[in-house]
Amino acid sequence: MRGVLKELVPDIVLAERLFGELAMRTRRGKGIVRESYGAGEQAAHDIVRAAAEALSLEVHADAAQNLYMTLPGKDRRAPSVIIGSHLDSVDQGGNYDGAAGVIAGLACLAGLRKSRWQPVCDVTVMAIRGEESVWFDVSYIGSMAAFGALAPEELNVTRSDSGRSLADHMAQVGCNVEAVRRGEAYLRPERVRAYLEVHIEQAPLLIDQGIPLGLVTGIRGDLRYRDARCYGVYGHSGALSRQYRRDAVAATTALIQCLNDEWLRLEQEGHDLVFTVGELTTDPAHHGPSKVAGETKFVLDIRSTDEDVMYAMRDAACSLADDIGRDMGVRFDLGSHTYSEPAVLDFAMRKKMALLASRLDIPAIEMASGAGHDAAVFAQFGVPSGMIFIRNDKGSHNPEEAMAMADFEHAAQLLTAYLVTELEG
Amino acid sequence: MRGVLKELVPDIVLAERLFGELAMRTRRGKGIVRESYGAGEQAAHDIVRAAAEALSLEVHADAAQNLYMTLPGKDRRAPSVIIGSHLDSVDQGGNYDGAAGVIAGLACLAGLRKSRWQPVCDVTVMAIRGEESVWFDVSYIGSMAAFGALAPEELNVTRSDSGRSLADHMAQVGCNVEAVRRGEAYLRPERVRAYLEVHIEQAPLLIDQGIPLGLVTGIRGDLRYRDARCYGVYGHSGALSRQYRRDAVAATTALIQCLNDEWLRLEQEGHDLVFTVGELTTDPAHHGPSKVAGETKFVLDIRSTDEDVMYAMRDAACSLADDIGRDMGVRFDLGSHTYSEPAVLDFAMRKKMALLASRLDIPAIEMASGAGHDAAVFAQFGVPSGMIFIRNDKGSHNPEEAMAMADFEHAAQLLTAYLVTELEG
Repeated sequence: MRGVLKELVPDIVLAERLFGELAMRTRRGKGIVRESYGAGEQAAHDIVRAAAEALSLEVHADAAQNLYMTLPGKDRRAPSVIIGSHLDSVDQGGNYDGAAGVIAGLACLAGLRKSRWQPVCDVTVMAIRGEESVWFDVSYIGSMAAFGALAPEELNVTRSDSGRSLADHMAQVGCNVEAVRRGEAYLRPERVRAYLEVHIEQAPLLIDQGIPLGLVTGIRGDLRYRDARCYGVYGHSGALSRQYRRDAVAATTALIQCLNDEWLRLEQEGHDLVFTVGELTTDPAHHGPSKVAGETKFVLDIRSTDEDVMYAMRDAACSLADDIGRDMGVRFDLGSHTYSEPAVLDFAMRKKMALLASRLDIPAIEMASGAGHDAAVFAQFGVPSGMIFIRNDKGSHNPEEAMAMADFEHAAQLLTAYLVTELEG
Repeated sequence: MRGVLKELVPDIVLAERLFGELAMRTRRGKGIVRESYGAGEQAAHDIVRAAAEALSLEVHADAAQNLYMTLPGKDRRAPSVIIGSHLDSVDQGGNYDGAAGVIAGLACLAGLRKSRWQPVCDVTVMAIRGEESVWFDVSYIGSMAAFGALAPEELNVTRSDSGRSLADHMAQVGCNVEAVRRGEAYLRPERVRAYLEVHIEQAPLLIDQGIPLGLVTGIRGDLRYRDARCYGVYGHSGALSRQYRRDAVAATTALIQCLNDEWLRLEQEGHDLVFTVGELTTDPAHHGPSKVAGETKFVLDIRSTDEDVMYAMRDAACSLADDIGRDMGVRFDLGSHTYSEPAVLDFAMRKKMALLASRLDIPAIEMASGAGHDAAVFAQFGVPSGMIFIRNDKGSHNPEEAMAMADFEHAAQLLTAYLVTELEG
């Protein structure tokens, strides 16, 4: 086998060219902007479509304009393998989050094409739409729609920059919105043999440990209150003594501090959990340096691989909001929350990839994914799913993302090795 | 004396007309806008100047365009009594904060004019400029300039709405900016016999206690960090575990919570203190629901009648910021702070007003002022100063300020009684 593995190599020259084109076409100022169902994402789809056509892959799009680029297998009717990731980015993001997975897939298929090796079944690179939920407050738009599982009401959610609906933006890039609304599935779980996703790591664990690749065990779910509020009463900061205050900042600060304590407690009990308040603002139209604040707006983001832990944290948030609200004379309205389930990735696939990495002399460790990925959707639909993380400095969702091409090449090599050993015959 | 007091009554009809004119000319939408050295403040000055001229008072303006409206006394060369307050308001403020004091003075002088009573010395109503420090980050612009004590560099401070300098805005309403810059004094402390200021209460103490008037013992000083920052590092909220976070929101929340604890501790030791964070924001250009926050911006407002307590709280803020910054891997930069001293008001004046209120059957209690007032400047320059607070519902600095005209009349009556008993002969 080692001989076969060394012969079949991914096309890294193609990969570098594609990263360059993506950066050139979707950079705005310092960072990358590939907004979900917008011009930036579309430009990225155009680039990978052209590359797939140049490789003579079969190219299709579904009703939600996810792109499928297929290397035909010997048995066209056998369930296929999908190598997927997304092409959208956050606003002022980096060039690798998402795109690295699609490009790894194309580099892998380009290598196989060149060597004229044919798999037993179809292998499809899937460029997925709308994964970054900063644009629409909806999780996994593209992959859910591919399975016909996007809730129709989510088509009405508006995009954070334009204020226009998802349906509207979908129509603009050529989607069949009515088919999405009716829940028409392009993918059927029983027709997918396996799903594989390569993605940059979004934390510094691999950097810290000096290891190029991670093999992902599971993906944290996410329970998020995106529009939580605290209502107090504005008043003069000098004149109002403690007993007359209904101070939204003091109350919100107390709530966040108590929830940080609760996070620490759950973590010390050995539970997987991260808790974040990433947005917190008094109202610029009404706050002032000499005013007790009458309102705050904030986000509570709760993530765990264990849904019981997420619910425990949610319950803590609700009861603390009630208690603190009563004690401090304010009213919390946490609003509604969005929810994505945690996902467990396939054990056998992971063990096989660990074995191959070892044979290829590529250091790799097992780890959980803190961030959500489309792999979670495939896993929830019962498709055996695996993920490879690539070491990445400076985190993701920012222009400083720093993935070394040598590490990317390791990931594409491992992907190629997996396909070749799994699908030869 | 009771007879004299009952005869000499303030002109409440005039007062009501002036409140009406002010509201009509300076309301924008729901609230009042009389921006310091801007169109709204100028409109208010125009209204009271016209009223003073109609009463045949002597009208003068100083280099900073403070307005002096004088009822001549028998001895024109004797030190005068000043009844002052400001005419500017916060953005979307109410009609009474500041203006009530100027109108009370005019109503009082109108009553004295009508009865042909002449005081032993000049009595001047002073309409003061630029008291609300939300416009320029400078305390007591008008009264400091009247004493020739406005620091020249403060003329470069920019207004929060326009971004243009104080010098620029002053010039636009006809000030002699160079005279202000040179520190030319219009008022000399030894030429002012006493300063009296009527002002609405900005807290609900009088409302709570069912008392129409308060006699002010002292004015809290204010130590304020207006542009404090916490710098962390942005990161993915799901992917970053605790040990990798440098979370600006978590650190800022911890700082505020510790300072609130410190406030409680100092208060329980019997010290006078209020502590407020009225503005707190993550950066809308970079924050996100799935990002650990890399930056916060906030205001720390510390007020006390005891400057040692303000400094103790400042020291706590600085050392907690260092400690928390080190523990949580962030950097606090509290920036520079503004400072206004606490002021002690005149004991004899207060006792005399208490006696007169009792003779007039007007319930009044002694109390400290949490908010700053121009009376603090006069007191600091050694002028015996007194303040009368008028009961006011709904606080100040908002469109809902609610002062009953009956309570205003009590204040104007007390003011008249004070002048008549103090300045007859």
